[in-house]
Parts: sequence; structure tokens; C-alpha cells
Amino acid sequence: MANIKRLGAMLAEMDADWAVLTGADSVCFATGHVVPIEIGQSPFSGGPTVAFVGRDGSAGVVCPNTDGGQGGDYEEIAYAGFANAVTDQVGNYRASVSELITRIGLSGSVAIETSSFPRALSDLLPDDMRPMDVPLARLRAVKNEDEVTHMAFAAKVAAAGQNEARRLSVPGACEMDNFGRIRSKMEVMSNARCALAGEYITGVDRTSQLGLPISDRIIEAGDPVVCDLAPRVAGYWGDSCSAFVVGGEPTAEYERMYDAAKNTLELAIAELRPGLRVCDFDAKLRAHMKGLGYEYPHHSGHGIGTSVHEFPRLVPDETALFEENMFIMVEPGSYVRGLGGLRCEFMLRVTATGAEVTAPFEMTCK
Amino acid sequence: MANIKRLGAMLAEMDADWAVLTGADSVCFATGHVVPIEIGQSPFSGGPTVAFVGRDGSAGVVCPNTDGGQGGDYEEIAYAGFANAVTDQVGNYRASVSELITRIGLSGSVAIETSSFPRALSDLLPDDMRPMDVPLARLRAVKNEDEVTHMAFAAKVAAAGQNEARRLSVPGACEMDNFGRIRSKMEVMSNARCALAGEYITGVDRTSQLGLPISDRIIEAGDPVVCDLAPRVAGYWGDSCSAFVVGGEPTAEYERMYDAAKNTLELAIAELRPGLRVCDFDAKLRAHMKGLGYEYPHHSGHGIGTSVHEFPRLVPDETALFEENMFIMVEPGSYVRGLGGLRCEFMLRVTATGAEVTAPFEMTCK
Repeated sequence: MANIKRLGAMLAEMDADWAVLTGADSVCFATGHVVPIEIGQSPFSGGPTVAFVGRDGSAGVVCPNTDGGQGGDYEEIAYAGFANAVTDQVGNYRASVSELITRIGLSGSVAIETSSFPRALSDLLPDDMRPMDVPLARLRAVKNEDEVTHMAFAAKVAAAGQNEARRLSVPGACEMDNFGRIRSKMEVMSNARCALAGEYITGVDRTSQLGLPISDRIIEAGDPVVCDLAPRVAGYWGDSCSAFVVGGEPTAEYERMYDAAKNTLELAIAELRPGLRVCDFDAKLRAHMKGLGYEYPHHSGHGIGTSVHEFPRLVPDETALFEENMFIMVEPGSYVRGLGGLRCEFMLRVTATGAEVTAPFEMTCK
Repeated sequence: MANIKRLGAMLAEMDADWAVLTGADSVCFATGHVVPIEIGQSPFSGGPTVAFVGRDGSAGVVCPNTDGGQGGDYEEIAYAGFANAVTDQVGNYRASVSELITRIGLSGSVAIETSSFPRALSDLLPDDMRPMDVPLARLRAVKNEDEVTHMAFAAKVAAAGQNEARRLSVPGACEMDNFGRIRSKMEVMSNARCALAGEYITGVDRTSQLGLPISDRIIEAGDPVVCDLAPRVAGYWGDSCSAFVVGGEPTAEYERMYDAAKNTLELAIAELRPGLRVCDFDAKLRAHMKGLGYEYPHHSGHGIGTSVHEFPRLVPDETALFEENMFIMVEPGSYVRGLGGLRCEFMLRVTATGAEVTAPFEMTCK
């Protein structure tokens, strides 16, 4: 899944010699090295795991010894972060970066990630530093063949979670407990623990609001459920959202609202294609939804890959064009006090001529 | 739970004017602001959430708008990280830090955290920067009254997870599935999602090795189980490890090995007290275990708080002294090919005169 050659081409275009990747998402994109993230930055690290990629195709990774040996095609130094002794993690991190820089022959100009480059590495690298945030985001948006496979599996894991959510959403069950069981289903399928974003919200009142945390609420018959599942599987994110009514008997108004969102998602599948402008796509979806009597206050969707939300974001002022092998989440929804909320979200892959749903799952409110 | 005054005293001792906290753990320790960590750095952030604490007791936090409004006693700027528009997260982050610096009147010298301070903030702060890694680690090790309450609850959540693990460890159950259910139990008790470190490993072969990932293995009667649970509850970590045999009939050798670890843990409870040197305590535990015929290749334990592993680490060369209201994990264990593995871990609070177990749970192998 590594993208060393593609990064080399980006560097040539920027006229930079080396890329220094410090975001966990970018390290994985560049080299395939998966940085564990689910308890935040490792307490055994002296700074962010860093990957170096040269214009000539050289690559190296410096990571704590808890995460080394993943076997990718790069030089690796796994420094003592965890040891049965007093350990100077920052010192070991800096020394290992120095050593790797020598080993791979890094010199010239470097491209860095502004949001994650640590001050602790500033004096070890050439003074000629330039941000690569924008070209890197654009490069990451288009997936290579291996990445397409990874995305497909992550989406399949999310779809399995959606099936489990539907099975577990019965009167008497608890939101938080169900969310744990759904997570467990996805982790068994991945045969690994997964970082997980998303929500599982139930009831008319709660689903009509955005941004609530999962709670210990007990589910009742007739409750709307909004289930948004985004598991990270081997460094790549799946995402998905379903909405349905417990017991399968929605009110006529809820069903009408649901059909509007589903119909808008179907329009998205029919319309998405390479060369289309993101803002035009976004506007078309919003106008369609509004024509059916509903609207949503959030983005129409977002790119996804080694980060759960990445370029391009589907917002009214994004002028970028869609390209083949972008993975795009599309998620029209509606949230109405007294009626409840819903959101219909599939992962779409932009194909040569249109779009296809990656790992579809049941999309009905009944 | 904020430690603004204590940080002020530390700054006075360092002769620095302001502390700039950029680790999620330190931000929580300083201000009580809880940074979400369970999907790593937020895709809606322009850099690490930062807290400023002045020697005079002023405090401020800059965080993405997804995490603001927690109501702590500090100035807050929650910048647009998530918006229904193209968003320059790094630009917004930097602008908000600039604005907060003006608002709180930051000037003079600043103390920084080496492992997390971002290059993106370097030019916004005074040139007079000095690392506070060592004094901050020592300050964080001793908990204030509110923190003691937080730690006690986090330990109680871990203990509830241990009870659930014992209940679910039956023939036919799956490691990964059980781990999800145990997590779910702890999240229901916390009424919140929890980042979770730890492991749940079963069988003679697997428990005799360290560092294996949780798998889809199916549990059999007579299996040893090693269950290490460390949930993060409202910014503070619990931790715990139990070991037992499915069906409750250990072999005589396994029971002898178990008794050695349990006995060593009991010695630790009896011996731990303020003023004791960490390396002396560590040596005593290792010697005791060895006298009983077993040994462990890892630390004897570690401090815990807003990070799951923090100062002091219980290793042979740590010369620091224990102090009242340190929370210390102690975890003697043994791992033997053909016999299996085990580890007995409680959270101990150092009291004025000795130590007490925080939230004990069943510690037998049967």
C-alpha cells in the first residue's frame, strides 16, 4: 500500500528533495507503517513516529520499539521507548532520527506537515523546509490499487457492524452496551482491535440533535436509531451510517423524511464521476434534498483513507474536481424536533466513468 | 482537578513565567480540559490542543470547536476545525493561539514539553523557551484531592471490567468478542466511551508469551487467561491485571507460579510507603519473586494518572523516592512455555504512612 513513488513525483513537482511525514495518517499512506493511535500518542514515544521519503525512492521510519518490525519496504530504526530501565525517550527519538538521516543520506530541501511537525526535530533537518500540506492532501485523496483493497475491506467491516446494529437494536437494549457489541463484531472480523469513530444514538429526542455522546439510554419500541460506524482497519478507515426504527414501523412522516435522504444518496451515486466539481455536486445534493422538504446543516460528505475525514470535504465552497479512485463518503440526513433524526451514508469509489458503492448494507428505515 | 496553582509553583522554581502544555495528558492535568484521544489526533485540529498556565494563576486553552465548552476555569478559544466550509485548520489554530496569547498577556520565558511542542507555534511564543519535561513529570506523579477521586473511579471501572472478564471467560467464547463485551461493561459504568489499553490473552501457549495481540481464538476449559484492563475515564486512567484458569482448576505448577506473583504483590502492598527509593522497592520485589522460583522480564510497575504509564517507572535504575498520593501500578508476573503466563496487578495509592489498594477485585487463579 506504500506510495513512495507517487510521493517522489510530488516532491519533484515541489522541487523538494525529501518528504518528512509526521502525521500517523501520512506515515501509513507513505510507507504502510501503521502507527497505533487508539490511546493517543504512545506513552513510550519521544515524539511522533516519522517517515522519510526521498525523491529517489528511498524511505525510512523512526518509531518506538513497541511498534517496530512491521516488515514494510523501508529502513527502520525502532528506538528504546519501552525498556526495563530509566529511558530518555526524547533523547532516543532524536538520536535515532539523526542516525536514520545519515543512513539514508538525507540532505537538500525537505517538505513537512505543518500540523504535526515537532519542534524537537527542527534542528536535525536542513533549514530549507517547506509545507506540503496542500499537495499531500491532494495526493492522498486518490488511492492506489493496494489502497483500494484496504478501503474495500474497511468498508466491509463497517457494513458488518451495521448488520449487527440492526440485529441488536431491540427494546430493552442499552445504547452503550450495543455500541460495544457492534465494535466487538467489527474487531472479530478484522481480527484486530480497531480505533472507532462514530455514534449510536436512539430515540426521537436524541436522534433529532447532532453531536450527542452515546449514553446508557435503554431502547424502546418505535425508537429511531442513528448508527454511524467508522472503524480503522489496518491503517485505513471504513465509514457508514444507517438509520431505522426499532420494530420496523416508522410513522408516515419519518418514512417520508427517510425517503428524502435515501433518494438524495441515490442521486449522489448516479451523479458522482471524475471531473465533477465538488461544490457543484454538493449544491445538487442540497437542492435535491430541499426540493423534497428537508435539509441538513452539515457537509454532504468527505474524503476518507488513512484519516477518517480527509480532502476533499463536500462543502459549498470546495472547488476541487473529483478524480478516479477517490473514496467519498456521502451522508445526507435530516434532524427534526419531535420527529427524530436520520442519515444515510455509503462509501462511494469514483470509477473511470462514474461511481460505485463500496460494501453496501441494508438501507431501509424498517 | 486542575493543577494551576501547583504548576505556578513549579514555574517559580524554574524561574519561568508560563507553561505551554501540548500533551493531551498534561493539558488535562493542568486545566481539567479532556482532549479526546481515541482516534488519535483529531482530523479537525490544526495542531495539538494547547494549554497555557501562568505563574500568576492565569490559564487558557486553545482547542478545536469539536471539543470546546467543557466549562473549566480557564480562558478558551475553540477555533473552527470542523465547519461546513473549506477550513484552514492550521491557520485557525495559529490565529487562535496568537489571540489567546494577547488576551492572557503571555510574555517572558516559557516552559515547554519537548515531545509534543509543535514547530507551528515556535514563532508565536517568546524566544526564551526551556524544557519542563522532568519537573512536570515529577509534579504530575503526585495527585491532588480531586485527582485522587478521579483515580479511584477509574480504578473502580477497571475492577468492574475484571469481574466481567471472569464471568465471560467460559469455554466456547472468543477472545476478541469477550474483550469487546468487557469494554462495553466499563463504558456503560463510565457512561462514556473510554480509550482502552490492555490485553485479554488465553491458552497456555499464548499467555506464556508477552506482547501478543488479542485474536479470534476460542476459549477452552482449563485455559489460563491473562486480562489486563486500562480504561481512560474522564481523562484519568485505571489499570489492572488478573489471571485465572477457565473452569477454576489450575494445575499444581500453575497454582504455585500464581501464588508467587500474588505473594509478591502482597509484599508490595505491605512495603510501599513514602520515602522508599523506587529501585530498592523494585529490587525487593524481584528478589522475593526469584526466591519463590520465578521472575519477570518487565518493569515491576509504573506511575499512572492522565497517562497510562508515567513517572515513576518501577525499574532497577530509578532512584526517585515514593511520595504520598502517588498512584503506583505493581504487576509481578511469570511467563513459562508449556505452563502459561500470569500477572497480578493492583493500583496502589501511597498514603501518609504506607499504601492501600485502590478498588481491589478478586485476585485468585481459580
